[in-house]
Amino acid sequence: MSKTNVQWLLASRPQGMPSTDNFQRNEAVVPELGDRQVLVRVVYLSLDPTNRIWMNEADSYLPAIPLGGVMRGGAIGFVEESMNPTFAVGDLVQGLLGWQQFYLSATGKDLTKLPNLPIPLDAHFGLLAHIGFTAYFGLLDIGQPQEGETLVVSAAAGAVGSLTGQIGKIKGCRVVGIAGSDDKCKWLTEELGFDAAVNYRKGDLQTQLKAACPKGIDIYFENVGGATLEAVLALINDNARIPLCGMISQYNSETAEPGPRNLASLVMHRGMMKGFIVLDYAPRFAEAAKELITWYATGKLKYRTDIVQGIDNAPGALLKLFNGTNTGKLLVEVSSPK
Amino acid sequence: MSKTNVQWLLASRPQGMPSTDNFQRNEAVVPELGDRQVLVRVVYLSLDPTNRIWMNEADSYLPAIPLGGVMRGGAIGFVEESMNPTFAVGDLVQGLLGWQQFYLSATGKDLTKLPNLPIPLDAHFGLLAHIGFTAYFGLLDIGQPQEGETLVVSAAAGAVGSLTGQIGKIKGCRVVGIAGSDDKCKWLTEELGFDAAVNYRKGDLQTQLKAACPKGIDIYFENVGGATLEAVLALINDNARIPLCGMISQYNSETAEPGPRNLASLVMHRGMMKGFIVLDYAPRFAEAAKELITWYATGKLKYRTDIVQGIDNAPGALLKLFNGTNTGKLLVEVSSPK
Repeated sequence: MSKTNVQWLLASRPQGMPSTDNFQRNEAVVPELGDRQVLVRVVYLSLDPTNRIWMNEADSYLPAIPLGGVMRGGAIGFVEESMNPTFAVGDLVQGLLGWQQFYLSATGKDLTKLPNLPIPLDAHFGLLAHIGFTAYFGLLDIGQPQEGETLVVSAAAGAVGSLTGQIGKIKGCRVVGIAGSDDKCKWLTEELGFDAAVNYRKGDLQTQLKAACPKGIDIYFENVGGATLEAVLALINDNARIPLCGMISQYNSETAEPGPRNLASLVMHRGMMKGFIVLDYAPRFAEAAKELITWYATGKLKYRTDIVQGIDNAPGALLKLFNGTNTGKLLVEVSSPK
Repeated sequence: MSKTNVQWLLASRPQGMPSTDNFQRNEAVVPELGDRQVLVRVVYLSLDPTNRIWMNEADSYLPAIPLGGVMRGGAIGFVEESMNPTFAVGDLVQGLLGWQQFYLSATGKDLTKLPNLPIPLDAHFGLLAHIGFTAYFGLLDIGQPQEGETLVVSAAAGAVGSLTGQIGKIKGCRVVGIAGSDDKCKWLTEELGFDAAVNYRKGDLQTQLKAACPKGIDIYFENVGGATLEAVLALINDNARIPLCGMISQYNSETAEPGPRNLASLVMHRGMMKGFIVLDYAPRFAEAAKELITWYATGKLKYRTDIVQGIDNAPGALLKLFNGTNTGKLLVEVSSPK
């Protein structure tokens, strides 16, 4: 009795903002498994700004997704069937399982078996994986926070930003978040312990930031690019560090904002800006996971997920990332987490 | 018999490009020397892009020059009179002597006595000082050139740029210069040994750079900012380093170009951009001087000075820096180097 596999293919490349028209729904049939093959039932599909980059024609840090191919996406799921001695039915695995209900692995080598951790299933993306590890290595390795310094985080109510700010607090920084609504700002200060939060839609950003950062800015965790970076550069202290996690304002390239006019501030203040890709830190993921889980277990680190139901809603959900309507890590629940 | 001291005062702050109207000529009288005072006859006054920064109302890495004060400038000169046991008449000294014929030091502490080096007098600025040391530390400390890598230098026919490219060659890099005329490009490749040079006024810069850098760009020594940086960012390799020496296109702030639209390239390629101020390397100046002089003596490093005669011509000469008509280190010969 064959299973149907609902999947989304990349139908066309977006010009500027992606739309649901860029995707085509497909129903494939799950084949019989051959030797060493593993079938995974996808549970949580992760939607991330970087998905937009992968949709471009040009290769990035990963190859471009071919037109007509299954849309790439990180996900976790349970092994449903296995012809591979390394994987047993029921194992929890992670990988680039794609936008579909079932993922067929040819050898199992593209799957990572997840240990049994004392965290909810959605925390694998809300707290760990590319989200938690990005916050962890970007802030600690590149940002090098010192006690008493001021850390500013953009997209602070987003998945990475909210963790980054909390880790900054754990390290003794004054933490200021930038977000796009009063509700998000309230969440940052009242629930996550940020020292201040600034609504960039309300008044001049630089003026607000200056008030929130009376001692200037030592670290800026960059998630957005464009005008936000310009406002921050006007306020940096000597030897400021700017980990470049992402620049969501620039991913829809047709609408890319110009860069900051005041990059020369980096010269005046001996500032450093450095891009990074979390995959480069893979050898140290275990170290990060251990610390993140400990902080979570002791109540120092909270995460929030924004879960959209059903694979059919994946294309529409992706747009939330670019209009700022999600709070916390955006996931699609493709099948039951039980 | 009292001496007259022709000097230039800062009369007004420039809006955008500086003009000769921003300066006021003054004739002061050199007073009798008091205890510990030293009088210096200025020989070579250095004109640099950073002079424009000092003219702004806001403090930078140095305090702003007050209106009505003598225009600040680095210079060398000979001790003319001394009431200070540390300095003898005829000693060669360096300091921020200003735009004037004579500098009166109250204690001598603001003067650096220069050793007797086997170099012409103009080489103190053409090869050493903030010029040579900026090229040396910016490229070696931040750029970290490795043999076989591709180095691109902007403002390559300028004082710092021309040394930077030659040091890149000494370190085994493929060196590509960006300059503003065919004559300058010819000088870079035919006399200084650059592998290629690109005239940014002639056709699309990115296309030209791509042709000149078939293996991409590993290091970009940034002197200009703006559109040049955008063209370079489109071509950087993974782990590229961008020492930010200056951003002359942004110093006349009213006319500052927007920053590059593609800063996200730093994320994709784990690129690093870092500003620096050469004064921070003061403890290591002797090390740099020794190596630069050795390279000069063995013919591996050439410098060129562009010498304007007479203190009266200082304001007009400064403008050459911003319209690109100087080649090599711009100096004013205030009095005889003999």
